[in-house]
Amino acid sequence: MKRIGFLLLAVATLAGVVAYIARASGQSDGDASPIYGVKIPARYRDWRLISVAHEAGNLNDLRAVLGNDVAIKAYREGKLPFPDGTIIARIAWACVPSEENNKVFGREQSFVAGSATASYLQFMVKDSKKYAATGGWGFAQFDKEGKAADEAALKTCFPCHVPAKDRDYIFTRYAP
Amino acid sequence: MKRIGFLLLAVATLAGVVAYIARASGQSDGDASPIYGVKIPARYRDWRLISVAHEAGNLNDLRAVLGNDVAIKAYREGKLPFPDGTIIARIAWACVPSEENNKVFGREQSFVAGSATASYLQFMVKDSKKYAATGGWGFAQFDKEGKAADEAALKTCFPCHVPAKDRDYIFTRYAP
Repeated sequence: MKRIGFLLLAVATLAGVVAYIARASGQSDGDASPIYGVKIPARYRDWRLISVAHEAGNLNDLRAVLGNDVAIKAYREGKLPFPDGTIIARIAWACVPSEENNKVFGREQSFVAGSATASYLQFMVKDSKKYAATGGWGFAQFDKEGKAADEAALKTCFPCHVPAKDRDYIFTRYAP
Repeated sequence: MKRIGFLLLAVATLAGVVAYIARASGQSDGDASPIYGVKIPARYRDWRLISVAHEAGNLNDLRAVLGNDVAIKAYREGKLPFPDGTIIARIAWACVPSEENNKVFGREQSFVAGSATASYLQFMVKDSKKYAATGGWGFAQFDKEGKAADEAALKTCFPCHVPAKDRDYIFTRYAP
């Protein structure tokens, strides 16, 4: 029994070390998107804000668009195309009315970020060689459990971004 | 003329040095809010995201709430009250429909951040001694030119935040 206990401990420790190395290298230890092989980037939630948006209708979300350092620098310098290494993150939460805020404002006007939506996390990763067939961008989408969206979903990403070709396929503008 | 030129250069250099020191110490070299004396914090636009929101009605804005390192740490650890040194920033942009995005979605549903609103920037600064009379918080509001809102406007801040007393007067919750 002692030997099994030690073995389990060793395996658990090794798994921890592998996970740590994976995170430290900028990759998380979860799902990768089909087609593009993009994983959730480590510490993306610490990235700086590019802009915010609201999709009404069926989506009914509030969203934040964040960028890694390469992305923020390119945005602020108005640099196009985005350099390799750019990663742009889109986080979407349910757009929910805030009873509490409405009371304070005295009007029904306040909407805040609720729980994660079905398409919670999306990433665009710039690698002009690896993703040459899709404008230099790799795409990914994850739900709140970190499960990657399937190949059929991912196939819709690039065609939708083509209308923004003159801004290197990125719709979101930097909010001042 | 040469002497005047040198004097002007010296004054300009000194002004630059003073501005640099002010920024390096975390204070910008602009207006201070009445009552509380809060200036626009240096590099607040680089702070991390707490959450996003949408005020409809007359405000009709999209807003981001950012926090300095002290704020983000407290939020993520669920620490209340917020420690001294916490600064929370609220940036508001006009909520404008995006024709470009609507075309892609094939529906009228997309709203993005437009220009700065009249109440563009708001800050709450925690200093439990200095601002003891207002729950430990100092308040400020600035327009896009960096002009501070007047005393009458600033007097409305704290009373409005009292309903959130059990969350240390802060309405915004951290978005996952």
